[in-house]
Parts: sequence; C-alpha cells; structure tokens
Amino acid sequence: MNKIQQLQNYLQQTNTDAAFITTPDNVFYFSEFNSDPHERLLGVVVFQEQAPFLICPKMEVPDAKAAGWEYDVIGHADTDNAWEVLVNKIQASGVSISKMAIEKAHLTVERLEALQSFYPNATFERLDDKINEMRVIKDEIELEKMREAAKLADYAIQVGCDAIAEGKTEMDILNAIESAIKAKGYAMSFDTMVLAGEKSASPHGTPGDRKIKRGDMILFDLGVIYEGYCSDITRTVAFGEVSEAQKDIYNTVRKANEDAIAAVKPGVRACDLDKIARDVITDAGYGEYFTHRLGHGLGISVHEYPSVTGTNELALKPGTVFTIEPGVYKADVTGVRIEDDVVVTEDGVEVLTKFTKELVIL
Amino acid sequence: MNKIQQLQNYLQQTNTDAAFITTPDNVFYFSEFNSDPHERLLGVVVFQEQAPFLICPKMEVPDAKAAGWEYDVIGHADTDNAWEVLVNKIQASGVSISKMAIEKAHLTVERLEALQSFYPNATFERLDDKINEMRVIKDEIELEKMREAAKLADYAIQVGCDAIAEGKTEMDILNAIESAIKAKGYAMSFDTMVLAGEKSASPHGTPGDRKIKRGDMILFDLGVIYEGYCSDITRTVAFGEVSEAQKDIYNTVRKANEDAIAAVKPGVRACDLDKIARDVITDAGYGEYFTHRLGHGLGISVHEYPSVTGTNELALKPGTVFTIEPGVYKADVTGVRIEDDVVVTEDGVEVLTKFTKELVIL
Repeated sequence: MNKIQQLQNYLQQTNTDAAFITTPDNVFYFSEFNSDPHERLLGVVVFQEQAPFLICPKMEVPDAKAAGWEYDVIGHADTDNAWEVLVNKIQASGVSISKMAIEKAHLTVERLEALQSFYPNATFERLDDKINEMRVIKDEIELEKMREAAKLADYAIQVGCDAIAEGKTEMDILNAIESAIKAKGYAMSFDTMVLAGEKSASPHGTPGDRKIKRGDMILFDLGVIYEGYCSDITRTVAFGEVSEAQKDIYNTVRKANEDAIAAVKPGVRACDLDKIARDVITDAGYGEYFTHRLGHGLGISVHEYPSVTGTNELALKPGTVFTIEPGVYKADVTGVRIEDDVVVTEDGVEVLTKFTKELVIL
Repeated sequence: MNKIQQLQNYLQQTNTDAAFITTPDNVFYFSEFNSDPHERLLGVVVFQEQAPFLICPKMEVPDAKAAGWEYDVIGHADTDNAWEVLVNKIQASGVSISKMAIEKAHLTVERLEALQSFYPNATFERLDDKINEMRVIKDEIELEKMREAAKLADYAIQVGCDAIAEGKTEMDILNAIESAIKAKGYAMSFDTMVLAGEKSASPHGTPGDRKIKRGDMILFDLGVIYEGYCSDITRTVAFGEVSEAQKDIYNTVRKANEDAIAAVKPGVRACDLDKIARDVITDAGYGEYFTHRLGHGLGISVHEYPSVTGTNELALKPGTVFTIEPGVYKADVTGVRIEDDVVVTEDGVEVLTKFTKELVIL
C-alpha cells in the first residue's frame, strides 16, 4: 500500500474529510517534490477517496510535475490569493470539509485562521502523529538512500581529518569539507560544525577563525543529503599530543556511544538507551557535562521523530533510524561528542556511519 | 528609544500583558542572540513594565548571555517541560496573562495550544504587523551591515565569473563561490544558485552537473550574511557568443530593473514598482515569461516584509530595504534575472549591490 493510500485509509478510519500537508519535508515524503517555497503556499491535499492534489507557486508547477507526482498540480501566482485557489480546487474535487487534519506542529496560527475563515464550522485535528508513525519506519528504498548519505558523511569526516594542520582555522577545515561534498554534487544536511580546542565544549558553537594548535581536540558535526535523505555524524579527533584528561573523556564518551548502540533492538525504549549512555558518563564523573539528549530521529529531516531522551518511553521498531550522540563538554579540558546513525533491524542494529571510533591522533 | 522599549510602549497602548517572540530572526532582532534551536523552545518574552527575559535550551544559555542580552536568560533541559519553565518564569515576574501577543505568521498551532492550556481564558493577538513595522525600517547601524553584506555579494559574483570555463559544471562554479566566501569567514544567506543554458529558465532551479558550453547564459543568485544581515543578488552573464534573441531578453530585463530602481523614493507604492518593471517586459513581448513578483524585503531574513507585488499598495518609507529582481524565463532562448538590493532614502534610492549590469561576456 503506497503512502497516499495509507493516508486515505487513515482519513476513512477517523472520519476526516481531508489532510492538508504543508511542511516541505512532508510534501516531499508524499509527493517526491522537494521544494522550499519560503512564505509561499505549498501543500498536498489528500481526500478519503477523490484524487489528491498538490498546490504550489505557479513557477514551480513544471518542477512538481517532473518530480513524479502523478496527480493534479495547481499553481498560484504571487498576485493570486493562494487560499482561494486551494479552496476552489477542494470544492471542484466535490468534497465538503467538516473535519480536516493538519500538521499542528508546523502549521502556523495564521494559516489555521485562513482555513477557518473558509471553513468556519470545521474542526481541525492533529495529523502529526499519523505522519510520524508513517515516516518513522523507513522502507528498504529509504534505508538504501540513508546508507549512501552516511557513506558521504564518513567521507566528509575523512576530508576534515586530512585538512587539519597547525595554524589552519576552523573555517579553513569546514571549507575543505563542504567543497569536497559539493564537488561530488551533494549538499550538506545542515551547517557543518568544526570546533577546535575549548570551542569543542560548546555543543552548538559556531566555527570561526580559531586556529588549530597542538593539543587541541577538534569536533566535527556534519551531514550530507542523498536523494532527499540526511546523514548526521560527529567525530572528535586530536591534533598532536593528547592529555590523560582528554583521553579519559574521549574513552568515556566512546563507551557511552558503544554501549547504547549495543542495546539497540526491536522493543528497546528510547529512554533506556539514553539511560545506558548517561549512566556510563555519570559513573565516570562527567554526568553534569552531558547536557543534552542522547539523539534524535533522522530521515528526510535532520531532526525528526522520535526524540531519544530520558523521558521518551517509545519502544523502537524495526526500520527506525536515529542518532546516538553522547557528549561531554568540559571547557577546561575538551568537548567530545561521538555520533552515529543507526537503524533498528529485525534482530538488532545496523550502524550506518562507519568512520572509526578509535581516537584519531593527527 | 530601543527596540524593547518600543515593544513595551506597544503593549501598553494595546493593553497587552506580554509579547511572546519565538522566530529565530525576531529573537535575534530583539536580543542580538542568533540561534536556530530547531524544535526546541527559544523565545523572548516582553512585558509592559517588568524586565523581559529570554528562554532557550540549557546548553545555549552561555551563548545567549555572551551575545549581549542584558536581562535574564532561562534555560530548559531536554528533560524539562519547556512550557512549564516558561510559565513559571512569567509567574515569577509577577505578570498575569489575559492578553498575549504572538507571531501568528510563525507560531505553530501546537505551540498556541500549549499556551492556551496554561492560559485558557487569555486571548492571543497578532504581533506580526508591529514587528514588521519595526523591522522594515533599518537604522544606520543595520544599513551599514547590509552595505557590507552587499559588497560581499558583489565579490561573490566576481568569483563566479572568474570561475566560468568551458566544461566546468554548475556545481564547480557554485563551489568556487561558496569556498571564497567561507574563506573570508562568512556564510551564504541561502543556497547559492548557478544555472547554465536552458536551466537558467527555471526560476527556482537546482544547480547540478550541467556543463558550461559556449553560447550559454549563466545565472547566479546568491547572498552573504554579514553580522546577521543578508544580501541577495542575481546577475546573468554570457559565455562565448550571445545571440540577438538572448541579448534582447537581457536588455529588456535590465531596463525593467533600472526603470524600477529609478522610481524608488519615499511614498512610492510596492505595486507601482512592480508595474513599472512588468510594463517594460510586457511591452517587449515577454510578459508571460515574467512569472514572479518584482521583489521582497530584505534584512535579518532573506525574504521578509514587505512583498513587492503588483497588488501590494504599501507606500515605502525611508530605511526600507528590498530587492528588485525582474526576470524573463524563456527556455528555448535563455532565462535572465537581474536583482539588486535597494534602500529607500530620504529623497530617493541607494543601490547596495553594485556589480555591473552591462552584459558581461566571458
């Protein structure tokens, strides 16, 4: 059963007249059309039985059709009222709306109010959980793309290691990485992070003109998009000598990463994995320096459902792809994060990112 | 009067208890803290009189303080309920909420419902227009940043021109541009566009492995961020010989761009500018190939208020920065777009982007 049919079944079961999907990642998931229209309206409308349609800025209609969407594509010009265009097409489809499913975690209040102005008596229900439930399980075609995305991430880390040299800046190294990926024709999943020395202890730091010097650890956090699917890897490497204190943090984070990965199998809960990693780090005395969740779902979006936190009791199912990325951020010693992309298999785990976790000393 | 004070005055005038601001660009505008927390809660809360505060992921608290925000910064851990943290701080501020202003064009339905669960009797009013009214007028400090951003965009176009050679791909040239900007320590405002030959006729096309050959026109659309402010420039250049048909389109688009720019002054309406450019293109017989609005506001966001369309009757005021970017997309000849960033001055216009509009033949 294809994705549209799954959604149609859901609409029938929940007695919902239409699903209105506007986040670019979800539009891509259902339509194969990958576009960010910024503030312009882009959406997929699915009904219980009538043919679905896609609405997009007029100038993107040819691209949408070329992407493989087999149903109607409705364009709206900048001078049109896009909502009227939308509502007219819904009417032309012969559907009256008394209950519509929307992405509450993404749709803006303004857009909801626009819909309410046309359908003042309709109720608007939450579609997010159904889409999460669908997207969280990757099929073999999706997994194959994610394996390729992970391979590119491994390659990017190698490029970063090769670029490290005394006196180079974080931006020099970042530049080498992104150039190499672009030269292959791919885009990054997010802004690449290269953080050296004390800056590695800022989990969301910004690369700049900090120069590499002996004794630094250098943290890379990056990802690559392959046919619409993201990878996300972090490695922390050392330049020149490494102190015992740095090594101890590294080995602790590595054990947290590896112990959590070893526990991945169908039925394990997200919170169990977080606890396994956190216990390793706490037992080593670094608990207060592991300041974020263990990981997050990964796929078309670089951060997607599910969140892998200490409080999420979701039992993971085969096909779920997520990151495992413990970190310790101790500014007077170093920051270390080690992140892999993993998929729950029928009987355990497949690790998509394969770059070594031995401490690389350059 | 600083920005926070302006907002406090607005809250007093409208009898609103608090403003809740969560879009990263608006948080930056009010707090100087530039961060994209993805799905995590980041916000600035401003009251009529009590001190405002910033709420952000716990791990970003040091960065927020370092950015120059002089009031309280409240962190929430991934295991906290961020909404409870928010509401507790509002209570601790001694403010009870019966009317709150929110960014309806950005806040999600889910987040509104979260607020409603804590403040079931409160009303939620639209803050967007007030923020637009503030952000649309750039002060001299902001304009200076935008001039620098525009200079970097001019430089990036020159790098692109220098990189063009027979047999190189769009991605090769894109890579040269982004490398040069990154080497200077800056980031692009958006994904750089380099489109060659027939691909230049796709207004939102994706650069790829299309190779440059003689007779191609090559369209660059790019921008650079300087201290949080964006530029956005488009130039279309030629490689090798140019046909009369290509030249005619180029000259038409150039005239549309220049005539619209010449009409910019205080009081001119956005729609007047769109019409001036569109008339030039229509009179030359290409009206149906100019498929988008004339331009958009520019500043912290690469697309911001106001939209420069044929239907927007907004009269422009001094300090407003926006793009003027007419285009003609005729796949069997070429696509051409020429985009400048302009600011309305007290008596006319200042053009921030200065790269030549003479047809560059490489």
